[in-house]
Amino acid sequence: MSDPKAVAEALSRAQSVLILSHANPDGDAVGSALGLMWALRRRRVHARVALSDPVPPTLAFLPGAEEIDGADVVDAPDVCVVLDSSSPNHVGDLFEHVTACGCLIVNVDHHVTNGRFGHVNWIDPSSPAVAQMIYRLLPLLGIRPDPQIATCLLTGFVTDTNGFSTPNTTPRLLRDAAELMAAGASLAEIMRQAFLNRSLTQVRLWAHALQTLCFEEGVVWTVNTPAMRQAVGATERDSSDLSTFLLTIREAHVAASFTVLDDGRVKVSLRAKPGYNVAQVAARFGGGGHPPAAGATLECSLDEAVESVVSALKAQVSGHTAEVKRS
Amino acid sequence: MSDPKAVAEALSRAQSVLILSHANPDGDAVGSALGLMWALRRRRVHARVALSDPVPPTLAFLPGAEEIDGADVVDAPDVCVVLDSSSPNHVGDLFEHVTACGCLIVNVDHHVTNGRFGHVNWIDPSSPAVAQMIYRLLPLLGIRPDPQIATCLLTGFVTDTNGFSTPNTTPRLLRDAAELMAAGASLAEIMRQAFLNRSLTQVRLWAHALQTLCFEEGVVWTVNTPAMRQAVGATERDSSDLSTFLLTIREAHVAASFTVLDDGRVKVSLRAKPGYNVAQVAARFGGGGHPPAAGATLECSLDEAVESVVSALKAQVSGHTAEVKRS
Repeated sequence: MSDPKAVAEALSRAQSVLILSHANPDGDAVGSALGLMWALRRRRVHARVALSDPVPPTLAFLPGAEEIDGADVVDAPDVCVVLDSSSPNHVGDLFEHVTACGCLIVNVDHHVTNGRFGHVNWIDPSSPAVAQMIYRLLPLLGIRPDPQIATCLLTGFVTDTNGFSTPNTTPRLLRDAAELMAAGASLAEIMRQAFLNRSLTQVRLWAHALQTLCFEEGVVWTVNTPAMRQAVGATERDSSDLSTFLLTIREAHVAASFTVLDDGRVKVSLRAKPGYNVAQVAARFGGGGHPPAAGATLECSLDEAVESVVSALKAQVSGHTAEVKRS
Repeated sequence: MSDPKAVAEALSRAQSVLILSHANPDGDAVGSALGLMWALRRRRVHARVALSDPVPPTLAFLPGAEEIDGADVVDAPDVCVVLDSSSPNHVGDLFEHVTACGCLIVNVDHHVTNGRFGHVNWIDPSSPAVAQMIYRLLPLLGIRPDPQIATCLLTGFVTDTNGFSTPNTTPRLLRDAAELMAAGASLAEIMRQAFLNRSLTQVRLWAHALQTLCFEEGVVWTVNTPAMRQAVGATERDSSDLSTFLLTIREAHVAASFTVLDDGRVKVSLRAKPGYNVAQVAARFGGGGHPPAAGATLECSLDEAVESVVSALKAQVSGHTAEVKRS
């Protein structure tokens, strides 16, 4: 069985449901989990969300975010729903607890690589966000979205499509988003939380880092150091997102932001435009990620890190160019 | 007469139509004009677009952009449609030519301040983009959107709502956007052209301007000068969009980017988060715009411009705060 009806049937019989999603949760992980939680509570089901990592501050505005369980889960639920996770490994330790208690496992995901590890599996790679799959589930549960449900689900839509800008954004997603707005979600507020939420300190750090901007052969990169962070009172986390900004440069095929960590290691955050794969480059340096977004931490000097990573990125860009020319 | 039917009737009787929009054209000005041009050509009307300033490079991808007339218009049209312009002053010299030739003037706009200067006026301040008004006009003209029309109009939607993020974005706009995608517009490509299209030179200029970042009482601002532009080979236009970036700072209620022009005047670009009105501030300095996005050009020193505009912005922010506290 592998469709929303099977999921709805499993949930209809449950008295208590535990909802899990992946570690380092993003807007779709948290939004789809909380959206389902509120929908089930409307049916008087005892529903909770547990995640193995804390909810990021930028998602703290979501209704119910403060209730999310961090650590161990005491009661054994009837059903455990695992969202947005292609493998149980992505869920973390919580998943082992769940298998130990013998409950029914429902796996709802949009990754094409999903391992179908549940008793009930609904995998739809055509859906840009798992939150959209939850939205499609609501009528099968006899629930109409209220403002809480709508806010959580629309946040998943917005964050997983980078503000409706990824190529997998469909007309249907926009129509569903319109329905969620009509049900009481504020798209402007969600956009503001997701994309208008850089700190002053972060932008001051960027101002320093952008002084180091280099561009060669389709690769753009910057460097930030502990001295720069001290100058503006920033932390290591404040350099996050700079690589995403660098990729907005028209001439850049791939972008790298190098951060000299406080312990002297060099963290590099990589981003790529469609057709390039920075996960391959990150893997070469012991890191990982997705083709458009990846990263690694190197134990070498800054100069060595920049030289080796940038030359690998140039090879990725020129390899891609060569492939395009051949075809 | 003040509705889309009156506009459609005027256009139905025309053999030749000249479409004008405002100077310094943005995505809604160019997108709505070209969308209407293609729709009228589908009806075998002789339709042209003329603008008093060149189409920005970021909009050059729009079908028909290369045909846009810059300077004088030779033939007298039956009808002249003026789009997205609250006053004929915003159109520039072209408007005088049009009034001289005695054609019917059709005024289609979404600015609440529109002066109703046309023979036929359709003003809808509830529409987030004039391109949406043109979309609503299509069925009255008996036209269904094709990929050219859809691309032009969807670009207007996306740019005037800053990627569906402004508070005036409605469920209806998302539904209309879904229809335009279904008609052949690529939302991902439009988003890429609109938002992933900063030049390397522009970002290098920003790196200099961000060194001047100031923040006081909810107001964030930067300055850029001819010397900074010379250092990186940038032009005056390369500072555009910086105020939008500054507004992504969490602590900022309003943002201002001051550009010392090559002729010594000071241009200021203003942006505001929901609830604030920078059009009021811009108007005080002889400029204009919308509550969330406005601008003005001042004939004074940089120091004087910063002092007077920033203090007006602080008053706007504190006035707003006071109102909120009162209620």
